[in-house]
Amino acid sequence: MYAEIITIGDEILIGQIVDTNSAFIAKELNKIGISVYQITSVQDDRVHILKALEEAGSRAQIVIITGGLGPTKDDITKHTLCEFFDDELINNELALRHIKELFANYFSTPISEINRQQAMVPSKAIVLHNANGTAPGMWMHKDEVSFVSLPGVPFEMKGLIVNEVIPKIIEKYDRPHIIHRTLVTYGLGESAIAEKIENWENNLAAFIKLAYLPNLGKVRLRLTAKGPDRKVLTDAVEEELTKLPSLIGDFIYGLEDEETLEELVAKLFTAKKMTLATAESCTGGKIAQKITALSGASAYYKGSVVSYSTETKINVLNVPRALIDEHSVVSAEVAKAMAKNVKSLLKTDFAIATTGNAGPTKGDSNAEIGTVYIAIATPNSVFADKFMMGNHRTRIVQKAVNKAFELIQKEILKI
Amino acid sequence: MYAEIITIGDEILIGQIVDTNSAFIAKELNKIGISVYQITSVQDDRVHILKALEEAGSRAQIVIITGGLGPTKDDITKHTLCEFFDDELINNELALRHIKELFANYFSTPISEINRQQAMVPSKAIVLHNANGTAPGMWMHKDEVSFVSLPGVPFEMKGLIVNEVIPKIIEKYDRPHIIHRTLVTYGLGESAIAEKIENWENNLAAFIKLAYLPNLGKVRLRLTAKGPDRKVLTDAVEEELTKLPSLIGDFIYGLEDEETLEELVAKLFTAKKMTLATAESCTGGKIAQKITALSGASAYYKGSVVSYSTETKINVLNVPRALIDEHSVVSAEVAKAMAKNVKSLLKTDFAIATTGNAGPTKGDSNAEIGTVYIAIATPNSVFADKFMMGNHRTRIVQKAVNKAFELIQKEILKI
Repeated sequence: MYAEIITIGDEILIGQIVDTNSAFIAKELNKIGISVYQITSVQDDRVHILKALEEAGSRAQIVIITGGLGPTKDDITKHTLCEFFDDELINNELALRHIKELFANYFSTPISEINRQQAMVPSKAIVLHNANGTAPGMWMHKDEVSFVSLPGVPFEMKGLIVNEVIPKIIEKYDRPHIIHRTLVTYGLGESAIAEKIENWENNLAAFIKLAYLPNLGKVRLRLTAKGPDRKVLTDAVEEELTKLPSLIGDFIYGLEDEETLEELVAKLFTAKKMTLATAESCTGGKIAQKITALSGASAYYKGSVVSYSTETKINVLNVPRALIDEHSVVSAEVAKAMAKNVKSLLKTDFAIATTGNAGPTKGDSNAEIGTVYIAIATPNSVFADKFMMGNHRTRIVQKAVNKAFELIQKEILKI
Repeated sequence: MYAEIITIGDEILIGQIVDTNSAFIAKELNKIGISVYQITSVQDDRVHILKALEEAGSRAQIVIITGGLGPTKDDITKHTLCEFFDDELINNELALRHIKELFANYFSTPISEINRQQAMVPSKAIVLHNANGTAPGMWMHKDEVSFVSLPGVPFEMKGLIVNEVIPKIIEKYDRPHIIHRTLVTYGLGESAIAEKIENWENNLAAFIKLAYLPNLGKVRLRLTAKGPDRKVLTDAVEEELTKLPSLIGDFIYGLEDEETLEELVAKLFTAKKMTLATAESCTGGKIAQKITALSGASAYYKGSVVSYSTETKINVLNVPRALIDEHSVVSAEVAKAMAKNVKSLLKTDFAIATTGNAGPTKGDSNAEIGTVYIAIATPNSVFADKFMMGNHRTRIVQKAVNKAFELIQKEILKI
């Protein structure tokens, strides 16, 4: 049993927006055991949409369509759906009432004819309530295939998927189980890992698939198992996982199952009732942003001093000017001083500090582009490591952030 | 003339990664006048890949394929390409030499048989040099259609697109011109704008398309014109744009052409030789991160105090405890004190401060979830505005960040 996703909108095909909707929908479908066969992005064009619907319907039992349901003229999805289902648009009273309520509560402008049009839906459609917007979702059928049309605004689409579409799919379809386990390795390249686990990989059961996912200094290994009996899948995958540490040794730092390293760090700090501060130079606030993107961060995270200039390091972080003059602003000594001082300034148990040169120009130090020092202050000590992170600004910052989370995770685990 | 993009990889279809490659490629193709007809994401599966190649080749003259060229066993792309082109893999000496050089310079592990395999390419392929990785790009032909296969690692793919693929397309194909202009509006919803510009829209020339792109409190209007004469397109689009201010009045804040609000702010601060600091509570470092993501930020940006706890506001930003006790930590008074104090602490001309409650729980104040105060300190004054930004954590932060850039942009323009 397969699903397919069709995203409608020229903005995706001109590269103006990245299609994040499909990844969200695919993940939610996977969780309930439904594989996505294909994702297709098509133009705001009647003929193109019709062809995509026809083709997806010939391959999959569920077709989820996003985009093209806004109130304005560039939207032709609804009329095309009518053509596809040989149907016509009728006014839906519930949808209209919802639009009126939204306007009464949240909009300063009066409800217009264009807004009223959004309550027009194909007569055969089951209307799905869009709690977060004016365009309703629609569920239709053709030859045993379900077609679900959703607005493209991510916030509205997500609400509809989680609250309306997934529960209906669970109710309507028998599904196999799919489980994924992802293992994160550091330090070894894709091919070096492949050689170490070659025999193991060749002996995997047919229902288990392995994928290598390399990205910025880490390679994730993803095991996917699919079948009717969840326990069989879980047991088989767990057994295979236990064999890996002896094959790739200490390159594994942990097991993930949807969990990110930031989430793991947040969990550890919260559980151990420890607190954290950061002092960021070359990472420019990205560590703070990643930490605070998770709700509950205030339980352990006290804040950051983003010291993007030498003066800020001196004036706010109290790094001695003499230390900077002696060692340069990009140095282990300055990183350690930043970590120690932000820890005492913000009265925390741990601190992370970064200083480096992300390029493209050399800035306040002569350090080679890509040089990054990361310091960790713990309750009893402080240390700094030096890293060379290439010569691409965005990647240097991203790698430094990943490395910082890796280092702090190792330290908090010792508590 | 059309191009298509095929991305290969189960990781996209299970939603583990978002397909950012396609947006990048589409944007680069658009810049040189080539429209993308369809983007298709398919499984790591021989039959599926063959079908996607066949179909894309029937609709487009250029097909760009990413993914499935890594060194490990989950990659079947190269063998499938051989099947499609009725070809066989041969060793490419230049590609092998490049792999050896990369290993000599950057890797600690010895070169392996698996790595050597990456130098095997279809005999009819023109090899494209991948400066950033071991998997070469490949350019092949079938019945007048160009097929270009690239590795899926974004950094490697981007280098190949910019340095190899785009120059070759420019050399090989005559192309029409495409221009896009995007206009950003604030305050009005999609349908309210549509009503105001209905007549204007109906009178647009046939070669100009309009799209509405609503997102988080702003609606972008995108005009796209396509044709053989660039000057005709530019003149026509510019003329249409001049008519809009009188129709949607002061809701337009500026014109963008690829440019983001952060980039505009960076440009203004740099040109006016003014400096900026931030003090972020509810936005948690995201403003700093957005500012420092752009190279050259250190010319005007001195840093941020991410005061994620009340204590940090008191200890680092010197916000008087009495002020917090009297007005609550989420208040105009505290926002103004944060902005004023971070401006003097970091010795800048301007400062932005945010304090609010992004939820999901109420935290250190009783402010309703979604309440955000944004303060701006200018060389001569300080003010704070209150905003209600809904009840969804990620969106509250994103809206607050957008609003902060909007406010600071208005102030820096006054200098």
